[in-house]
Amino acid sequence: MTITVNLIHFTNAAVDANARAVMQFSVLDWAACGLAGAAESSFDDFVTANAAEGPCQILGGGTASPTNAALINGTLSHALDFDDTHFAHIGHPSVAVVSAALAVAQHINATTHDMIDAALIGAESSVQVGLWLGRDHYQIGYHQTATAGAYGATVAAARLLKLNPKQIRAALGLASTMASGLKSQFGTMGKPLNAGLAARCGVEAALWAKSGMTSADDGLQGPLGFGETHQGQNNPTSIGQGHWQMTTVSHKFHACCHGLHAILEALFEITVDPNTVQSIHVKTHPRWLSVCNIKSPRTGLECKFSYAQTAAMALSGINTGDIEQFSDANAKDQTLMALAAKVKVTADDQLSEMQCHVLIKAGGVEYVASHDLAAPMPLNTRTEKLLKKASGLVGLDKSKALWDACNRGSLHDFTALLK
Amino acid sequence: MTITVNLIHFTNAAVDANARAVMQFSVLDWAACGLAGAAESSFDDFVTANAAEGPCQILGGGTASPTNAALINGTLSHALDFDDTHFAHIGHPSVAVVSAALAVAQHINATTHDMIDAALIGAESSVQVGLWLGRDHYQIGYHQTATAGAYGATVAAARLLKLNPKQIRAALGLASTMASGLKSQFGTMGKPLNAGLAARCGVEAALWAKSGMTSADDGLQGPLGFGETHQGQNNPTSIGQGHWQMTTVSHKFHACCHGLHAILEALFEITVDPNTVQSIHVKTHPRWLSVCNIKSPRTGLECKFSYAQTAAMALSGINTGDIEQFSDANAKDQTLMALAAKVKVTADDQLSEMQCHVLIKAGGVEYVASHDLAAPMPLNTRTEKLLKKASGLVGLDKSKALWDACNRGSLHDFTALLK
Repeated sequence: MTITVNLIHFTNAAVDANARAVMQFSVLDWAACGLAGAAESSFDDFVTANAAEGPCQILGGGTASPTNAALINGTLSHALDFDDTHFAHIGHPSVAVVSAALAVAQHINATTHDMIDAALIGAESSVQVGLWLGRDHYQIGYHQTATAGAYGATVAAARLLKLNPKQIRAALGLASTMASGLKSQFGTMGKPLNAGLAARCGVEAALWAKSGMTSADDGLQGPLGFGETHQGQNNPTSIGQGHWQMTTVSHKFHACCHGLHAILEALFEITVDPNTVQSIHVKTHPRWLSVCNIKSPRTGLECKFSYAQTAAMALSGINTGDIEQFSDANAKDQTLMALAAKVKVTADDQLSEMQCHVLIKAGGVEYVASHDLAAPMPLNTRTEKLLKKASGLVGLDKSKALWDACNRGSLHDFTALLK
Repeated sequence: MTITVNLIHFTNAAVDANARAVMQFSVLDWAACGLAGAAESSFDDFVTANAAEGPCQILGGGTASPTNAALINGTLSHALDFDDTHFAHIGHPSVAVVSAALAVAQHINATTHDMIDAALIGAESSVQVGLWLGRDHYQIGYHQTATAGAYGATVAAARLLKLNPKQIRAALGLASTMASGLKSQFGTMGKPLNAGLAARCGVEAALWAKSGMTSADDGLQGPLGFGETHQGQNNPTSIGQGHWQMTTVSHKFHACCHGLHAILEALFEITVDPNTVQSIHVKTHPRWLSVCNIKSPRTGLECKFSYAQTAAMALSGINTGDIEQFSDANAKDQTLMALAAKVKVTADDQLSEMQCHVLIKAGGVEYVASHDLAAPMPLNTRTEKLLKKASGLVGLDKSKALWDACNRGSLHDFTALLK
């Protein structure tokens, strides 16, 4: 069976309870990141240009057509780069998929429950398509959040629209000729835009297929298909075989590069007076040394890519989940700089990309800790951490209300909180 | 200089008078093909779904926003596959570019004159980007009409919107992360859609760049850029160096595969009583034998890909410029079938892809003729042929009125004729 056939079957699959529980967190996280992204205002002109009277809620206020709501919300929810990540294929599954699912759900008056089910199926599909495309696809320059994300968004939209198998096939074919997104956009507004384009691609592909538009028979795996043309590795996948990738999605609890998260979690386990620290020795996977190891960051933005600075912040009790802490002022803080200077980072190829080890010498005592982001996180820990993160982004009351609306109530109860 | 820098300079270049005269024909041809495409009705649901109150005219009636007008008109004008082709890069330059230029021109109340200037600069850019990407890009499966077309549409829109160099750079960067389109859509509604997506891409990239959106510094030729990721060959180009590719664009004067056009032009030079024909020997470039050499076509659609049938039609005095003639009835016509059976087609690698040779034996006499589609066509010949083609598509009065509106009058005079 080709991946296209697998995705057609999977579109209407029953959902797994554990994966769904995690997806529900991702929907909360998506809303909090999106509202904070909208408040940041850099995309205001873009939102204004694409908003219109329509059935769908825009994050931060306003409405739009289903396609433009997906475009706008996909972009805004990725604006802070604080949304969930899946390391299996290296992509952010929720920004494209939840934005698409929500837009279509509002368009057809679906329930919150069905919207979250569709988002789960879509997000799972996007990770699986990403695995099928493989690391070559990512390494050569394609932004998996956008390319794999477009297929996830298509599947989510197709499920909500109750497309028949022939229509789902056409929708996947249309997505294959629309999906795009390059990593060369990183560091520009083009990166969040890529997520918005993927969300819109899914909504358009599904709506147009439903209206009878025809397309390639197997747009993904067929001749001259997306895989063949976009350096796909054609890896085997486990779509619909019982293993749900979304149970191990990572939520960002720190407002910095994901390469720094394992060390920040490890440092939580160590309590030490920062004034007594003599040395901090971090061991991490070699790939991160060229990604997030700025020794002496000069700006708040550079702090987000610095083992030294974030370790110093964490040991000093600064909340690394709070975006505001990644400020130019903290980059220039003498006490933090002195502590950061004591950090040594070395590569250890025995560690995975998601593991980190730290050894601190302080007051003649040695403290060690390790963390593996891939280790399963108990649901109650995830709840606690995500509600804390969401509170930091949108306030305690709103995050509680959003979480309630993810669990019960009508879709309108949820969308009313996105203004 | 990278191609990006060349395109930035070229966006505001002075237009060449000869190239502009040809572009004016392409605008007439675009309108006639588009109106006929709209009348064909297969995209009606797609049009309805994307139309809305807005400043921009939709081919066949209705209005839309600038971005959706570009999407719809780009699709409709390519629906019949009867629009212009440039063989240098193998792409249809006008469908994406004219659709984008017209949408933006209406959005900002520009003149017809400025719209055509912008369309020329955009179409020329699209052929040049196609040459820069090269045959590898096309062979591996990318649809140059869409990929190269997206950049042409961006340049046309950027010129009309008077973007400054920094904004043009951002627009090209945004286009690089949006441009898409696969050849595996050929034979489906996805093929015309690709042209519409390219048109929309250009309008969006330019509008968003104008509103301040940032993007990759060199989205085309830079690291992880479009060329590197999409199998571009990085060929040298002659952008802005005085040689205008658009002076040699081919207009389709026959409603069939472009591989058959050289032979049909050659047959125009031979007058012979079809009842006396003993044999017809066609020599053509080898690549066409696998493209348009159906020996005994069974349907009107298959006739469009048959040397034998189209030669028989031409020798019998049937107007191969009239879409209606490619009918199932003609496919089954006994007289035509008997004549078609006398056609032999052989490959000759001394001929270019645009050349054809024919030898007819009839009543003891040998007639020979050759044609090269690349040979310059006098402007008055092009006028005559294009007005005849347009008349076949939209009627004599409307084609004359469209041609007048391309030459003088306000943009409203032109758009009023697109209903």
